[in-house]
Amino acid sequence: MRPSGRQTDEMRSVSIETNVTRHAEGSCLIKMGETHVLCTASLESRVPPFLRNTGLGWVTAEYGMLPRATHTRMRREAAQGKQSGRTQEIQRLIGRSLRAGVDRSALGERQITVDCDVIQADGGTRCAAITGGWVALRLAVNKLLKAGDIVSDPLIDPVSAISCGIYAGQPVLDLDYPEDSEAGVDGNFVMTGSGKLIEIQMSAEGSTFSRDQMNQLMDLAEKGVAELTAAQLAAVK
Amino acid sequence: MRPSGRQTDEMRSVSIETNVTRHAEGSCLIKMGETHVLCTASLESRVPPFLRNTGLGWVTAEYGMLPRATHTRMRREAAQGKQSGRTQEIQRLIGRSLRAGVDRSALGERQITVDCDVIQADGGTRCAAITGGWVALRLAVNKLLKAGDIVSDPLIDPVSAISCGIYAGQPVLDLDYPEDSEAGVDGNFVMTGSGKLIEIQMSAEGSTFSRDQMNQLMDLAEKGVAELTAAQLAAVK
Amino acid sequence: MRPSGRQTDEMRSVSIETNVTRHAEGSCLIKMGETHVLCTASLESRVPPFLRNTGLGWVTAEYGMLPRATHTRMRREAAQGKQSGRTQEIQRLIGRSLRAGVDRSALGERQITVDCDVIQADGGTRCAAITGGWVALRLAVNKLLKAGDIVSDPLIDPVSAISCGIYAGQPVLDLDYPEDSEAGVDGNFVMTGSGKLIEIQMSAEGSTFSRDQMNQLMDLAEKGVAELTAAQLAAVK
Amino acid sequence: MRPSGRQTDEMRSVSIETNVTRHAEGSCLIKMGETHVLCTASLESRVPPFLRNTGLGWVTAEYGMLPRATHTRMRREAAQGKQSGRTQEIQRLIGRSLRAGVDRSALGERQITVDCDVIQADGGTRCAAITGGWVALRLAVNKLLKAGDIVSDPLIDPVSAISCGIYAGQPVLDLDYPEDSEAGVDGNFVMTGSGKLIEIQMSAEGSTFSRDQMNQLMDLAEKGVAELTAAQLAAVK
Amino acid sequence: MRPSGRQTDEMRSVSIETNVTRHAEGSCLIKMGETHVLCTASLESRVPPFLRNTGLGWVTAEYGMLPRATHTRMRREAAQGKQSGRTQEIQRLIGRSLRAGVDRSALGERQITVDCDVIQADGGTRCAAITGGWVALRLAVNKLLKAGDIVSDPLIDPVSAISCGIYAGQPVLDLDYPEDSEAGVDGNFVMTGSGKLIEIQMSAEGSTFSRDQMNQLMDLAEKGVAELTAAQLAAVK
Amino acid sequence: MRPSGRQTDEMRSVSIETNVTRHAEGSCLIKMGETHVLCTASLESRVPPFLRNTGLGWVTAEYGMLPRATHTRMRREAAQGKQSGRTQEIQRLIGRSLRAGVDRSALGERQITVDCDVIQADGGTRCAAITGGWVALRLAVNKLLKAGDIVSDPLIDPVSAISCGIYAGQPVLDLDYPEDSEAGVDGNFVMTGSGKLIEIQMSAEGSTFSRDQMNQLMDLAEKGVAELTAAQLAAVK
Repeated sequence: MRPSGRQTDEMRSVSIETNVTRHAEGSCLIKMGETHVLCTASLESRVPPFLRNTGLGWVTAEYGMLPRATHTRMRREAAQGKQSGRTQEIQRLIGRSLRAGVDRSALGERQITVDCDVIQADGGTRCAAITGGWVALRLAVNKLLKAGDIVSDPLIDPVSAISCGIYAGQPVLDLDYPEDSEAGVDGNFVMTGSGKLIEIQMSAEGSTFSRDQMNQLMDLAEKGVAELTAAQLAAVK
Repeated sequence: MRPSGRQTDEMRSVSIETNVTRHAEGSCLIKMGETHVLCTASLESRVPPFLRNTGLGWVTAEYGMLPRATHTRMRREAAQGKQSGRTQEIQRLIGRSLRAGVDRSALGERQITVDCDVIQADGGTRCAAITGGWVALRLAVNKLLKAGDIVSDPLIDPVSAISCGIYAGQPVLDLDYPEDSEAGVDGNFVMTGSGKLIEIQMSAEGSTFSRDQMNQLMDLAEKGVAELTAAQLAAVK
Repeated sequence: MRPSGRQTDEMRSVSIETNVTRHAEGSCLIKMGETHVLCTASLESRVPPFLRNTGLGWVTAEYGMLPRATHTRMRREAAQGKQSGRTQEIQRLIGRSLRAGVDRSALGERQITVDCDVIQADGGTRCAAITGGWVALRLAVNKLLKAGDIVSDPLIDPVSAISCGIYAGQPVLDLDYPEDSEAGVDGNFVMTGSGKLIEIQMSAEGSTFSRDQMNQLMDLAEKGVAELTAAQLAAVK
Repeated sequence: MRPSGRQTDEMRSVSIETNVTRHAEGSCLIKMGETHVLCTASLESRVPPFLRNTGLGWVTAEYGMLPRATHTRMRREAAQGKQSGRTQEIQRLIGRSLRAGVDRSALGERQITVDCDVIQADGGTRCAAITGGWVALRLAVNKLLKAGDIVSDPLIDPVSAISCGIYAGQPVLDLDYPEDSEAGVDGNFVMTGSGKLIEIQMSAEGSTFSRDQMNQLMDLAEKGVAELTAAQLAAVK
Repeated sequence: MRPSGRQTDEMRSVSIETNVTRHAEGSCLIKMGETHVLCTASLESRVPPFLRNTGLGWVTAEYGMLPRATHTRMRREAAQGKQSGRTQEIQRLIGRSLRAGVDRSALGERQITVDCDVIQADGGTRCAAITGGWVALRLAVNKLLKAGDIVSDPLIDPVSAISCGIYAGQPVLDLDYPEDSEAGVDGNFVMTGSGKLIEIQMSAEGSTFSRDQMNQLMDLAEKGVAELTAAQLAAVK
Repeated sequence: MRPSGRQTDEMRSVSIETNVTRHAEGSCLIKMGETHVLCTASLESRVPPFLRNTGLGWVTAEYGMLPRATHTRMRREAAQGKQSGRTQEIQRLIGRSLRAGVDRSALGERQITVDCDVIQADGGTRCAAITGGWVALRLAVNKLLKAGDIVSDPLIDPVSAISCGIYAGQPVLDLDYPEDSEAGVDGNFVMTGSGKLIEIQMSAEGSTFSRDQMNQLMDLAEKGVAELTAAQLAAVK
């Protein structure tokens, strides 16, 4: 039934390659099938103004797509002179999601910026960015711990994300682009490794969904996040 | 327990005054307690380029806040030279939500732009904008029907929205600003008058929530939306 | 002769409702016939850089129009990414006019920002903004005086403004939109309550006017400003 | 009494050198004492969208200052990414003023853009720009007439402008920078060669003025414009 | 003498991996030592306005750097709202260089946009972008030839580029970042596979160079380009 | 053979008029035939952040063109809201070139900004800007020396620039606009008065050139720069 032949509860194959760039404190290339996102975590000593002298740290994120990550070339946002509403919405989501897994007091007054740049897109880029972004963050924090710059681990629980939606009337896990562009209802679930919810974004465009369907999608999401957490932990071992 | 003394499942008083401005095809001033939003629906003959010659119509939305709608004056977005990420995220949400209740084929190849401008803010402005925006849209569509410009009603079902969150450990309905600024988990539920889901945005900042809590919040949302639908229908009668 | 049936020296009915928004230090909704402008005065502790450590205060203004304040929807300036030349010209005029009535030394090193947002437009919005802006300023300054933050009243004289023009060959007072769009000559007179001139902006587009006509317009303006001053003083009593 | 030793009704020496740049259809360098403005008139076949197929022409203006036209270097507007409110206000004034002297039907469906660039500033740059701008416009229109592209002269009457103000309590004509920066009241009068008024902009900053003073300033302006008209006509002979 | 231990005329190791992204018509990842640039060629049917109905094609380029391609994180240009002067200068160079090797008549009225995105930077990114950009272009043109969309090959000669400079008083080939940041003189040579010159950009900052030194640098460049041409041809075989 | 009838190695007549504006610390109007550029040097006490407390000075440049400096009117960059890539590329070149002739330690911690504004363009504006820019810089530095603000002369060697290109198959010196728009190869040579090279920018568009041709162009450039240096020294005597 699915264009890829996958089962309704079957994710695409996940691969997370770490330390892929020499300058960033933490980095990985995450592949969810044909969606490839490069995630880097950069350690910075400055924090946003509202945190100065509070002893609390900050984790923030930026998101971008290379112009030809998609089927047809998109205009470069730097050339257009602004980030689209979609880009800003996504990077705010990534930042919020990662912060939910951080003890900002243990991190101390420093900022980690996670850049998620989509090299190739096939649906689900924001979820891949969150999942890979946590791996980059984990690696950068490991450096801080190893160097003794921080004493207790500020990362409370892994954070990952997966999309679910209703495709051809069926709840399905991890939509790829052909499914995403057809689904009347789809959304993203951000969860911790221990199964707690951080963020839910369900959205119908020209359609609606029932509470029963919502529950089926949450079941799928829980299954997906469990698999992603395992992949994250394997990658950072 | 709530700063306002409300019950956990008690909404603020709702008032919807219609036809408040002489130029717009449809308009209302919605008040959810101390949150006041002016909503106007403007009929335009042009549609976005991707809809030309398709026979399908479009409903879109823009959102703004007057600089002194808030406790301290905010910089005017027009003076800053761009709309914030927050503004763009909200107006995309309003547009998607309203479109979910529209039969775009029945609307025909025309656009209705719903402007939601916050005159005074006390939490929940995006939900008030959706609820009031639907009323303005309803009134503008009524004009089209009355004039015979369209034959069958393109508005399938009323659309409204309410916020819910976990405040002081308790699920509560319709957060005001003092609650919103303290809640570790909060979100917005957009639903139809017949109880179907259009959009869910739950978000934890520096916190998490369980699936049980999620279910309690949905119960509250269903109660709130039922009351809002009644207020909408009374207003447009 | 006038579309509204008014006499040549007859203003539209004026209404000034005060304290219309809960957050601003001073506010009013001024209605000049069908032109409605919401004015708020916000007290801020910072002053512009060139005034730091001078002991002098500042009054400034910003102006905006809701997108559907007009007959056809205008593009939102925040979405366009800049304020139009017209907007900037108007807000500079409002600021200069209000400052002409202020003893900036008595105000002390603080800034009051007056926001004038047009809810509904029918000609003469900048004049209504000045007249209503002074009322909002008066109310905000009253708070400072009452709190003992300043000792002597910095507001020397009320400031108000009225438009005049030559419509169908006749000098007329307080042009509404149908007149304004036809008049070959029109302008704005800003004056104090005691009848002194602050600003005159007379402008002919594709036409000219004589010195005699200019004198007739000034006679009208003096009559109009006297009535506006009375309305201002009644409102802030 | 005046810093320059001039009489109160004495203008600075005026010089208008024509045809100073080889590409423009009309050009001049106007000097009002130490204020030097280069004015060029460019003929363009396109008109603004609202004039297409109306048979009517358009005259518009743009204004700029070289960064070191002033005592201390100003930031280049192109580098700042926008024209200041002051620049936009001035170029709108120049355009309106020049159009008041044009029969747009006789001009036919073409646009003339008048660029006024301040090479050196010593007060009164907008007035010099209008006076010199008309000369450039006259020369460009002469070319159209000579080539037979238009048959009847669209320039009805010369247009020029002069500043007046109250300096040290005295009404004075043609303020230079030292006077302008001290004057509590100053303004600009745009008039035709035959003495009709086009635009008056009187403005008090932190001060006021009486109707008597206004009349004295108008007397001065009439004297100044008569001299400017003579200089314009001599230059284009 | 060189930080890397290379000989003065020794390039870094070159690797060119082709077809690295599934959507682009041509792509490669070029590595010049630790400088890694992803190049994609996108075929578009539109051409710039000045080429419409001329039968001539166009090749253009855009350049970007991921924020953490460098030692310390740079601000994202999309977030800053504009491309830096350096970025624009580089992408204009890449476009001009590639066009020098194209018969635009044989290409026909279509545009190929070459995007060069720096994944990791260690000096010489613009040269790597040109060299890799030509490979991506070659692969995209091959598709056009294979599909029969064009008949004769529009690519006349391979195009590649290499940097040279004077480091520690010695002319050296292919500067890496540690050399580049110290060199008082450095530049880029763009050449064809058959040894003709397309572009020379030599620049001294706080220093000068002699004509003899210039000749030595050109000798080095010729050697480098010969090796790069061989690598290009091997990659596209 | 050349449109102007000049010999292949013959420059246009050069004129440099100094002290042409009263406010700038140094200024000149340079004419290379029909290319006229106004250059001003402004002394500023602030330096860029990276130089604070280093004792080193800075020389920077900005470049602009009046809208009607060219055959057809160009859009004003200030109105477009950004400087073009070409403008930025040119002003970066002027700044680098002038700095190559400055001992920034002898200059001390101050900045000199050289503004180069093209009044009339006929090819070679960037070269004229560099040559004239050095004259303005020299005059401004003379003021510093005369005032005793600096003790030893920071200007090591005059800096000037000339274009060369291949026109109709022949290497020619100092291209004017008709040549420049036809030449397949052209470039700019920046050199010191003592014949050392600072910058070479050779560029072929849709063409290539040989090393022999490059040498002939360098011969021409050396001849041109010698003449320009003489003109500069005569002007500042």
